[in-house]
Amino acid sequence: MKIVIVGGVAGGASAATRARRLNEDCEIVLLERGEEPSFANCGMPYYVGGEIKSRKSLLVAPIERLRQRYRLDVRNRTEVTEIDRASKSVLVRNLSTGETYTESYDKLIIATGASPFRPSIPGIESSRILELRDLKDADKMHVLATSNAKHAVVIGAGFIGMEVAENLVRRDIHVTVVQISKQILPTWDHEMVTSIEEHVRQKGVTLWLNDSPERFEEINQGSQVAVHLASGNRIDADFVVVSVGVRPESKMAADAGISCGPRGGIITSPSMQTSDPDVYAVGDVVEVKDFVTDKPTQIPLAGPANRQGRIAADHIFGRHSRYRGTQGTAIVGVFGMTAAMTGQSESQLKKSATPYEKIYIHPNDHAGYYPGAQPMTLKLLFDPVKGRILGAQGVGSSGVDKRIDVIAMAIQAGLTVYDLEQAELCYAPQYGSAKDPINMAGFVASSVLRGDHPVIHADCIMADSDSKYFILDVRTEAEFNDGHIPKAINIPLDELRNRLEELPKNHKIAAYCKVGQRGYMATRILALRGFDVCNVSGGYTSWCQRYPFDFAKSK
Amino acid sequence: MKIVIVGGVAGGASAATRARRLNEDCEIVLLERGEEPSFANCGMPYYVGGEIKSRKSLLVAPIERLRQRYRLDVRNRTEVTEIDRASKSVLVRNLSTGETYTESYDKLIIATGASPFRPSIPGIESSRILELRDLKDADKMHVLATSNAKHAVVIGAGFIGMEVAENLVRRDIHVTVVQISKQILPTWDHEMVTSIEEHVRQKGVTLWLNDSPERFEEINQGSQVAVHLASGNRIDADFVVVSVGVRPESKMAADAGISCGPRGGIITSPSMQTSDPDVYAVGDVVEVKDFVTDKPTQIPLAGPANRQGRIAADHIFGRHSRYRGTQGTAIVGVFGMTAAMTGQSESQLKKSATPYEKIYIHPNDHAGYYPGAQPMTLKLLFDPVKGRILGAQGVGSSGVDKRIDVIAMAIQAGLTVYDLEQAELCYAPQYGSAKDPINMAGFVASSVLRGDHPVIHADCIMADSDSKYFILDVRTEAEFNDGHIPKAINIPLDELRNRLEELPKNHKIAAYCKVGQRGYMATRILALRGFDVCNVSGGYTSWCQRYPFDFAKSK
Repeated sequence: MKIVIVGGVAGGASAATRARRLNEDCEIVLLERGEEPSFANCGMPYYVGGEIKSRKSLLVAPIERLRQRYRLDVRNRTEVTEIDRASKSVLVRNLSTGETYTESYDKLIIATGASPFRPSIPGIESSRILELRDLKDADKMHVLATSNAKHAVVIGAGFIGMEVAENLVRRDIHVTVVQISKQILPTWDHEMVTSIEEHVRQKGVTLWLNDSPERFEEINQGSQVAVHLASGNRIDADFVVVSVGVRPESKMAADAGISCGPRGGIITSPSMQTSDPDVYAVGDVVEVKDFVTDKPTQIPLAGPANRQGRIAADHIFGRHSRYRGTQGTAIVGVFGMTAAMTGQSESQLKKSATPYEKIYIHPNDHAGYYPGAQPMTLKLLFDPVKGRILGAQGVGSSGVDKRIDVIAMAIQAGLTVYDLEQAELCYAPQYGSAKDPINMAGFVASSVLRGDHPVIHADCIMADSDSKYFILDVRTEAEFNDGHIPKAINIPLDELRNRLEELPKNHKIAAYCKVGQRGYMATRILALRGFDVCNVSGGYTSWCQRYPFDFAKSK
Repeated sequence: MKIVIVGGVAGGASAATRARRLNEDCEIVLLERGEEPSFANCGMPYYVGGEIKSRKSLLVAPIERLRQRYRLDVRNRTEVTEIDRASKSVLVRNLSTGETYTESYDKLIIATGASPFRPSIPGIESSRILELRDLKDADKMHVLATSNAKHAVVIGAGFIGMEVAENLVRRDIHVTVVQISKQILPTWDHEMVTSIEEHVRQKGVTLWLNDSPERFEEINQGSQVAVHLASGNRIDADFVVVSVGVRPESKMAADAGISCGPRGGIITSPSMQTSDPDVYAVGDVVEVKDFVTDKPTQIPLAGPANRQGRIAADHIFGRHSRYRGTQGTAIVGVFGMTAAMTGQSESQLKKSATPYEKIYIHPNDHAGYYPGAQPMTLKLLFDPVKGRILGAQGVGSSGVDKRIDVIAMAIQAGLTVYDLEQAELCYAPQYGSAKDPINMAGFVASSVLRGDHPVIHADCIMADSDSKYFILDVRTEAEFNDGHIPKAINIPLDELRNRLEELPKNHKIAAYCKVGQRGYMATRILALRGFDVCNVSGGYTSWCQRYPFDFAKSK
């Protein structure tokens, strides 16, 4: 048996080492275009910023170890240019010598990954316009970041864009992030990241939203780049980083007649077999099944790539491993804040017209009575009838990764919001709460489904131009005076029972407080007294996150 | 409808507030023996130690708020001395005035909790021998801890004992912890806490294991207590804290003919109804069903108490909430280290003769290439045939709570170790690894079940007096020389393939490395070459945790 693997890193290297653990006799050839077949690409921004000091620590498995311990025939700086399925061979070029040769295979594993999309904008070929895919890119950015650079422009506010921005600020470089849409981190729903946008601005980053580059121009004898924007504005920078998404590197597979999906990803079976049973594909180059919707999609993530590599090797040796699909669990750290998510976002659910309900909560990461408690925002998306959890997003400075991981496991198990009510999680005051944020999310969502706790969302109130809702602020007078939803009337919760006559019967009431808890109590009191009432989910905090500009005005 | 609730805090206060949210008209009487019906008992050790500065912050819901917001008839310093089920009333004593009266109920909720067990040891009545159940106790301990006390003895090394020990050290008091068994934190399996024992000793605490007090004696005009131990030793201290477990405070219920279990806990239906349908019981006073084994047990925890309180109120108002049982998810912080667990421990499984397999891993809390990565130890217990997860324990300084919470959710969902392989969790280098510790635990356990990766455990090797096993250390020579399992032969992994002839055929081989990963690779290489081989799970690290004294000797 001879296995040829095209591309290293997460998917390819995992397939190679797994294959060796299953079989001592097979020949395993790992062909890697770059210098290193196994490096920590997720660490590169932090190497650029100096948080990771040594470049060597990015090398997960040095070539020598792969060769010796796993007896892999690793050939780096070696590119595959063509697949010949008829003869079961690939055409290979040694990038050091220029030599080309063919290499036969019994089984081929394509792990070519996804390459940064480089839009065809005039001037983009400048050597001061970088991307960040491999160590070569990281080296180049490291040089520029530690030179006398004063200003950089990052095009694209996704994961890598925001991580690069943070790390260039670590190098005392002023960063402008240009983003074509209205928000950073577009994988998350907009209202979830407005607090991060504010945080990033406070760290000195300029966010330039709703705009995009039309032309790059080298200026000052090529020592700088002028970024000309669609809006007519111009930003000058010492260098530019482009990170506007990736595209599966599947052209060679497609050219060989292997089936690819509409997004360019190679189509595989759950065992990672392509349309040619002797050819497997793993990692960012493949189309995956979305675990929640069961529909094909394209989600580049390291964990899934690792598992797919294992599965391909398993299947080659006759095992029945199957990939269950990708949930899209993701996390990003931005200047000490964390955004994490799993499952579907609201905008994805809207796009696919999937019915959903949602709730927001703003619990502390641990018991409020223990020092250092930090608030987070959790958004839970769930089926409006059965309560199956469809997705979750979290934002905060501490404890967000834990809660999203727990919900990721719940989604994997097909659990409902009722199961979150009953979750039994670690509680001591420095770690969580007796009613953990997970339980709270479950309580609130379940109450909504049971009809005990009708909720309304900020945008619905904002859109209520003909005042269908009587807006009731149940916070204290001081809180109310410090800012409130337009047109709200203030009756503090503890006075509510004695002031019921001030409320309209036969008119919808939208109650709210700071985070939703007093609003919930108000909703219960009024509902039990026959009022038509709902609670603004997540309270004034969610309203401000949804409408940060109006919030600022109201202050 | 008139609901009388005996006892506040987690179970009682949750039942009361839930009942009010379900019904505005019912009368809710909350009778609490202490000063405060709702306080954070889990925070008390940290108040004693000064980590929580203000006593006020321990008051979760002040009486006034309970009265006003929830319209509860809260009567503090009010004790219930008798239940008369025939007349549906309780006998009540006002502890301030001494007045007694009867209070009728339609539904009674018993939330009397569990009281610290106070062994009947001569001298235990001394005012310098404290326990820690309520705020009064905390106040007393706070006074002594902030006086000139120099030495304290803590009897019992469970959760509260260890938390109190840490917090007294915060007050510069030398602490001796006396524990009747051979280990601290006996809820955990022994080998999991040996590293914490070492850590605690390094923080200056004296651990006095396998011993217990036989007699207390006030000395120096009552300003100190001499603790006379069963071993004949004596320790003098300024004060003593006794925390040797709790007993459900169910006597009054039992006296009223309400059924209790053999451990003293009140028996309830899943809706928290006792043998008398008009009487409910919630919290530490009830017997619960163990979620994993389905058997009755007694587990005092705040989260379950909260949920039981809700369920009782739900059921009173005709809802069908059911308590699913208690998993025993628990966590404790000890001088910056964390021990967490969920589900069954190995010693519980042994006791009930439940078949199980186990594995140990020692992963980092986040990617090793990112600064600050800290190792943890995870132990996973699972069904040896189907792979259902039975329990997990974790110890380390960071990220332990997250992994145990994720496994707690997996246990709730009835998942197997194969599901952990496929978990898709948050990964960025500062939060986790592309192969998260959860995935690693799943990989290792699944490989064991698939027969790819036979494991052996430290105690089996230690017990192998007739050298049934050839012990193979596959670490580097330097690691080997720094300490190794007795009788081990060193062949570094990367030389293994070339030195196969040094290994015995027809003899069991136990391979090991530092944490189990190289040992696994060695196991695969040898198994594929026809050797009868297994891997020491968790490697030398687990061996040292299991045999810390021998480890120390081997240095």
